[in-house]
Amino acid sequence: MIEIITNPDLDKTDLLLRRPTQRLDHLMGVVQEIFDAVKNEGDYALRAFTSKFDKADIDQILVSKSEIANAKNLIPEELKDAIQIAKNNIYGFHSTQKRTACVVETIPGIECWRKQIGIDKVGLYIPGGSAPLFSTVLMLGIPAVIAGCQKIVLCTPPSSSGEIHPAILYTADLLGISEIYKVGGIQAIAAMTFGTESVPGVYKIFGPGNSYVTAAKEYATRFDVAIDMPAGPSEVMVLADKTSNPRYIASDLLSQAEHGPDSQCILLCTDLDLLYQVRDCIEEFLKQIPRKEIALLSLKNSKLILVPDAKSMMQLANEYAPEHLIIATQDSEALSEQVRNAGSVFIGPFAPESFGDYASGTNHALPTAGFAKAYSGVSLDSFVKNVTFQKVNKQGFNTLANVVETMAEWEQLDAHKLAVTVRR
Amino acid sequence: MIEIITNPDLDKTDLLLRRPTQRLDHLMGVVQEIFDAVKNEGDYALRAFTSKFDKADIDQILVSKSEIANAKNLIPEELKDAIQIAKNNIYGFHSTQKRTACVVETIPGIECWRKQIGIDKVGLYIPGGSAPLFSTVLMLGIPAVIAGCQKIVLCTPPSSSGEIHPAILYTADLLGISEIYKVGGIQAIAAMTFGTESVPGVYKIFGPGNSYVTAAKEYATRFDVAIDMPAGPSEVMVLADKTSNPRYIASDLLSQAEHGPDSQCILLCTDLDLLYQVRDCIEEFLKQIPRKEIALLSLKNSKLILVPDAKSMMQLANEYAPEHLIIATQDSEALSEQVRNAGSVFIGPFAPESFGDYASGTNHALPTAGFAKAYSGVSLDSFVKNVTFQKVNKQGFNTLANVVETMAEWEQLDAHKLAVTVRR
Repeated sequence: MIEIITNPDLDKTDLLLRRPTQRLDHLMGVVQEIFDAVKNEGDYALRAFTSKFDKADIDQILVSKSEIANAKNLIPEELKDAIQIAKNNIYGFHSTQKRTACVVETIPGIECWRKQIGIDKVGLYIPGGSAPLFSTVLMLGIPAVIAGCQKIVLCTPPSSSGEIHPAILYTADLLGISEIYKVGGIQAIAAMTFGTESVPGVYKIFGPGNSYVTAAKEYATRFDVAIDMPAGPSEVMVLADKTSNPRYIASDLLSQAEHGPDSQCILLCTDLDLLYQVRDCIEEFLKQIPRKEIALLSLKNSKLILVPDAKSMMQLANEYAPEHLIIATQDSEALSEQVRNAGSVFIGPFAPESFGDYASGTNHALPTAGFAKAYSGVSLDSFVKNVTFQKVNKQGFNTLANVVETMAEWEQLDAHKLAVTVRR
Repeated sequence: MIEIITNPDLDKTDLLLRRPTQRLDHLMGVVQEIFDAVKNEGDYALRAFTSKFDKADIDQILVSKSEIANAKNLIPEELKDAIQIAKNNIYGFHSTQKRTACVVETIPGIECWRKQIGIDKVGLYIPGGSAPLFSTVLMLGIPAVIAGCQKIVLCTPPSSSGEIHPAILYTADLLGISEIYKVGGIQAIAAMTFGTESVPGVYKIFGPGNSYVTAAKEYATRFDVAIDMPAGPSEVMVLADKTSNPRYIASDLLSQAEHGPDSQCILLCTDLDLLYQVRDCIEEFLKQIPRKEIALLSLKNSKLILVPDAKSMMQLANEYAPEHLIIATQDSEALSEQVRNAGSVFIGPFAPESFGDYASGTNHALPTAGFAKAYSGVSLDSFVKNVTFQKVNKQGFNTLANVVETMAEWEQLDAHKLAVTVRR
């Protein structure tokens, strides 16, 4: 079921930590076809693809005000309360990422600063499928609202009856997002790229999705639309030792495994007994979860690895650069200080990945597939540009004029020098 | 020479603000060929391409310690002093972008924070050609050093005698960057993507370049290497009124025009007389600058536009999203507050673009081609990841357990719920 490796070759970590690959090239044909159709035929194409792929006949692509207003009557108070608490935590954490411009006088008479300015038009993609991912509405919508994005467009596929799940509508409405469109898949990404009669084009597209959506987002960048980050299959790495609780670890691995058949779960552990206990717990828990078939496929990509010590554990973790890193060892805090590459880190036995997925406050849109080596997860930064400003007075100009003239001359950019000289 | 538009159609701004396009598709064949060769043949391919394109026969690709040590003897004190002052300003400004992790207790018992961690391995590309772009060494090297990137690789093409300009070596050395490789163009980007016997592979590649280098950086992302930002031709927009000095403006436009034949310079002005004065000054200055031929080509893409008022001026500026925005009007400070889309903004008559290009403190690696609508210029942020952490104790766990269980249940992710339930 899940591979146990007790004598890993730590010199061949490439092989040890190999990920299931996600190749998108073969999807580009259909992506291009749908993009072309949406570009040329707009809403007509959106309706046709929604009919074809979602089996839904949509008249009005924009969700109506009454549909949004009615959503709150269709979900229980318990869920509304939970969403409100999650919102508070996520809002609280992301609010601290706001920066007021800090004016730096680099020399007397020259002031420089950076100003966080929300991206004017952003698009949020919320996947459909079996379950309503209202948590992703929180994770993308909250920083977009804090950033002050002027136009926030949300696309999500309708059910075959042409409806959007009320939990998604409720959550969007709670954040003040009212432009919700019943369109999913490649055609949604194309719509936000080009704009149609109904759906506005945007400057940056956010959100998770299946391989079609991932390929479509990649394709959208050819039309100069920005995207949140490149994506691959989701993954978790857990670090454990003999003090860790095997039931906690098994449930953490499974909560990753149920995401999709190409998810990957890796346990690094310094204790052999624990490895086997975790495997036994996984087998026990598998009987309880409805998404067992998906989890079983994912577990085939997964590994329980015995490592000699904490040092090699951290070396492997930083090399793997996991999307989620759970540190469940006795010295979890000390180890967490050695993290260099990870999306989000969970410290201690009471920090399951689900806490970050839903409600602790951190974002759950994170770099997968090793992208954590160079990319950050979604944050307020993802929804703003930082524009730099410089204000120069006569004194500052005089102080720096020589310096700039000299440098421009050596770079053989004489008009750059001239722009200084004429101002003398 | 340069087009003057006195009655712009403000409803057709797309046409009015059209940029010279840079298509890269036709370069992808040669890019792929060179990437394949470098991937398969490593240093052997690098030497062959350097011989072919740079007419240089290179034995040792890594610049030697003695070459670096000798550089300081080959440039005058005046230039060294200028570089030192520029370094101080750039260092000062970028240092303020450092963040210490701010721990947010979202609810009692749950602490969340983000930690800025330098990207382990970064590659800086410094173009060659006629002039040594040591200023770009400052602009990329300084934030890389502040970020604490563990490995900083610098690639730049050698002259036909196999040497790197001493100003580049001196500047790199001043920053403590010692891994300098004599390789340029597509082959340099390929080397930093795959790694060769000499040149280490990196996680993120930075730097400007011609269309070959731009295409190569775009291609590198297919191999999961991050890049600083997509790029297009460079540009400046100047905002002026009847109080502006036409000589200042003409020199600013020309200092952009000399960058390359596909550069674009746009003046928006509320005063007709000034438009013509600026044109006359351009003609006068053109006689003085060595890169006149390049500037003349660039001016063909350029426009002097009469606008009715400051409001339409700002509307056009935000729509164009210029890489460089010079606000030379009487109320420049007030207008600067209305900027939403720009790379870097220069306020007042004494702030020529050259100041930001070299020494004011801000970065000169900026989003072109309208990318300023969604992208920021290079900053310390470009060289770090922000990893999120969460530490949860028993109290925090208990407070939030219900919330997470409820949300997971509604998203039909039962193993996510289980990971909470087993910890109760």
